[in-house]
Amino acid sequence: MLGRPRRLALLAEGLFTPAEAKTAVGVLRYRPGEVIAVIDSTRAGRTAAECVGVGGEIPVVKDVAAAATAGADSLLVGVAPQGGELPRAWRGSVLEALRLGWDVLSGLHTFLGDDAEFAGAAAGSGARLHDLRRPPPRRPVAAGRAAAVAATVALTVGSDCNVGKMTAAVELVRALEARGERATLVATGQTGMLVADGGVAVDAVPADFVAGFTEELVIEAARDGGFVVVEGQGALHHPAYSGVALGILHGACPAALLLCHQAGRAHLRVTAAPGAFAVPPLTEVVRAHEQAARWVRPAPVVGVAVNTLGAGEAAARAACAAASRETGLPATDPVRFGADPLAAALVAFRRDHAPAA
Amino acid sequence: MLGRPRRLALLAEGLFTPAEAKTAVGVLRYRPGEVIAVIDSTRAGRTAAECVGVGGEIPVVKDVAAAATAGADSLLVGVAPQGGELPRAWRGSVLEALRLGWDVLSGLHTFLGDDAEFAGAAAGSGARLHDLRRPPPRRPVAAGRAAAVAATVALTVGSDCNVGKMTAAVELVRALEARGERATLVATGQTGMLVADGGVAVDAVPADFVAGFTEELVIEAARDGGFVVVEGQGALHHPAYSGVALGILHGACPAALLLCHQAGRAHLRVTAAPGAFAVPPLTEVVRAHEQAARWVRPAPVVGVAVNTLGAGEAAARAACAAASRETGLPATDPVRFGADPLAAALVAFRRDHAPAA
Repeated sequence: MLGRPRRLALLAEGLFTPAEAKTAVGVLRYRPGEVIAVIDSTRAGRTAAECVGVGGEIPVVKDVAAAATAGADSLLVGVAPQGGELPRAWRGSVLEALRLGWDVLSGLHTFLGDDAEFAGAAAGSGARLHDLRRPPPRRPVAAGRAAAVAATVALTVGSDCNVGKMTAAVELVRALEARGERATLVATGQTGMLVADGGVAVDAVPADFVAGFTEELVIEAARDGGFVVVEGQGALHHPAYSGVALGILHGACPAALLLCHQAGRAHLRVTAAPGAFAVPPLTEVVRAHEQAARWVRPAPVVGVAVNTLGAGEAAARAACAAASRETGLPATDPVRFGADPLAAALVAFRRDHAPAA
Repeated sequence: MLGRPRRLALLAEGLFTPAEAKTAVGVLRYRPGEVIAVIDSTRAGRTAAECVGVGGEIPVVKDVAAAATAGADSLLVGVAPQGGELPRAWRGSVLEALRLGWDVLSGLHTFLGDDAEFAGAAAGSGARLHDLRRPPPRRPVAAGRAAAVAATVALTVGSDCNVGKMTAAVELVRALEARGERATLVATGQTGMLVADGGVAVDAVPADFVAGFTEELVIEAARDGGFVVVEGQGALHHPAYSGVALGILHGACPAALLLCHQAGRAHLRVTAAPGAFAVPPLTEVVRAHEQAARWVRPAPVVGVAVNTLGAGEAAARAACAAASRETGLPATDPVRFGADPLAAALVAFRRDHAPAA
């Protein structure tokens, strides 16, 4: 991961839950072979699976020293809070890791490499600071070029932020591959980048270039043909993150959309106004995305990925059935029940709509 | 302007036309008292008005030395090319100005202050480099707060980029003031910032914070009540800049929208694909903006600002009449015929729709 195989400790102090440690959970789910331990002193002694449902027997330990004893050689900051600051209480852990010579990987908006104390500690030990959200030094301006690629491009979009757009994209790629299709993941956020070993955190680039970076990534991923599955960000109905969502939609110029939704979520995750914005009905979310796509390139929603985290089996199946009934589209929880219904919908879409090659 | 009264030379070498020197034209129109000369060796000897229709007798000169003789003490980079790089041929002029001790103001995406040669020259002479697009060091996350301000917020939106959204906003503020209304401009781009002496270039901030910075600016501007007129950026139908347009729309949470349109423009300004995207019909542009506003806060389009630059008087009047007929809304060229019809529409909107104070 990021240049070499890693033995990661995931820093999630006090926050190692499915809702709060989004980056840690993504890495545990898709790159567990590179994780040695999770650091959360409030949950030390438990396993990753006990805390977040993935990561099996990977231990939760109390601090960097304990992770070192377990054999870790890199530290990943495993949360991505809104606003993107490093929690103050975590500075000591980052410094300790750097002094041990560990590389530190971070997806925060605050760049650890710009912090004089961190940079000094890294220079002293030969450690490297990888700020995943630091924008590449290019300024690509989109021009709708991704509409012309030879692959079938799909984008995961959401009824809110943090509903599982990255997870749905990864699962969809795997399900397409399981059907014998060629499929490539385009990562647009820090967690997806760790899973895919590439991509750009487009929510952190200068706003004028969100679509341009997305377009670049899609064109590159489309070279091998087949399917390209783009990880979406934000949500068109979210007051803070709608712009990023639209920039990705118009940069990627997808042929088809997959809608991601968390079952039972009543309100949008707007930190400063928790109950102020209702999650709109799925039919309205579908309509909004199809309207917005049409402004540059029309694209239908062809399936719904339902995140049923925390629900029992029967409730989870009922939630998928309800989403399917409401939208008239195939719906599944890709983690729980597999993403094949979404892969099948995409393959059928290509068969019915793609121009003859 | 920017801390002290200035005696500006506007650098527009080879590009001093209404279409290409957007920043120079904006400053000449609204801050002519602070402009000493325009630098364009290909047009030296002419006046600003002869080249771009504004700026009266302000002379066009051939180089920095000539501007110095005329009495300039600061250099403003007067173009904002897509992609935002400094034309290579202009480096010498910037260096010469810095060596004379002039402050250099720039709205480019490339920050002049990060260029070692420029920074060195500035340090040597005591000059300052003002990069208008450098993001402020905050990370504000929007939460729909601007919907609750005590002012009536209007936003200028466009059928394309570079159609006159900044100009319409400035003219609308003046027209409201002429009616005895209190009105405050919120600048969101480099030219507007020079005119308003404040604001943030939101197209250059990390994409997650476009809406948040806009929200901050609106809340600050709304403290005095009355009207707040927000300068829009980009366009919902533009493949590169739709995300910035939507981020401003949802950050500002306007009560009403003013649609800006350039008469006769057939295709969107997409540098790498000049004829690929048609400017949509105005009715479609109105519908798209009203749909997108509704995702966070509903807002109608209440008037159309028609940019008739280059058209004769009769054609200009016909273009306004056509826009009005097509949309059923008042339409005017705010520069040519005044913005009062738009101000009247906003005042009527507030009377009919604002909650009783």
